[in-house]
Amino acid sequence: MFTSQPIGFVRSPYTDTGQIPKGLGAKHEADGVLKILPEFEPGLTDIEGFSHLIVIWEFDRAPREELRGKDLLASPPSDNRQHGVFATRSPRRPNPIGLTTVELLAREGIDLHVRGVNMLDGTPILDIKPYLSSIPSEKLRRGWLAEAEARQK
Amino acid sequence: MFTSQPIGFVRSPYTDTGQIPKGLGAKHEADGVLKILPEFEPGLTDIEGFSHLIVIWEFDRAPREELRGKDLLASPPSDNRQHGVFATRSPRRPNPIGLTTVELLAREGIDLHVRGVNMLDGTPILDIKPYLSSIPSEKLRRGWLAEAEARQK
Repeated sequence: MFTSQPIGFVRSPYTDTGQIPKGLGAKHEADGVLKILPEFEPGLTDIEGFSHLIVIWEFDRAPREELRGKDLLASPPSDNRQHGVFATRSPRRPNPIGLTTVELLAREGIDLHVRGVNMLDGTPILDIKPYLSSIPSEKLRRGWLAEAEARQK
Repeated sequence: MFTSQPIGFVRSPYTDTGQIPKGLGAKHEADGVLKILPEFEPGLTDIEGFSHLIVIWEFDRAPREELRGKDLLASPPSDNRQHGVFATRSPRRPNPIGLTTVELLAREGIDLHVRGVNMLDGTPILDIKPYLSSIPSEKLRRGWLAEAEARQK
């Protein structure tokens, strides 16, 4: 067990979850800034060589509840059926950890200018990792999400 | 801030970090099992429809230190130069969070049989998310890692 500590905070155009594009075909193209705390600046060394970053962050405004039984089912905006939280990106999860892949546009000191934020303004950042490789799309199966997309067509 | 809680544990062939393939060209093809705790089983509903999962886990055997200044530089096994921890996958990070993409081979109740584990046996799992989409490889730049690969050729 460990206690999370922010390494920085997200600057995003979204101040309310209702503003964040959600559901089938939602595009995450908003620009934002990952503002890293000055004491962690050496950890950014050479990060500017990567085009994409994986940002791990905290759902700090999701309700803190002990999730058990039916609470572990989520109703994602992309479907009218419920699915297990681990098969969704729902904010209500046993550990309030979010994950977003962003494109790194520019680094200015402790400010990482990125495209593709879907977090609320002020969201605590827990970690940043370089995006190294992709699963080829022809090898991906996307379960209920693909089925929901097919039903909508 | 939150305190992490395991949702399960990894069964892996690796009991020592020296056994885990590392460095340039390392392949992660080991089979393992994500053993989810029974109280979280409803959260797995419909997960079997996804071919790939993102596993978020805890570096529970990395030393716990306050990292500052030069401690935030890492010497990855794929290069003889140091880079900022946020530009590497080093286990020594401000929040001891690891991330691995695995292929889901089969689900048996609370056991997820997966390919591609690179965690130690007994590693606590914090979260599982469905892998939904990839950045096309032609759009990826991989900074120091690509340079280290080029130097080795």
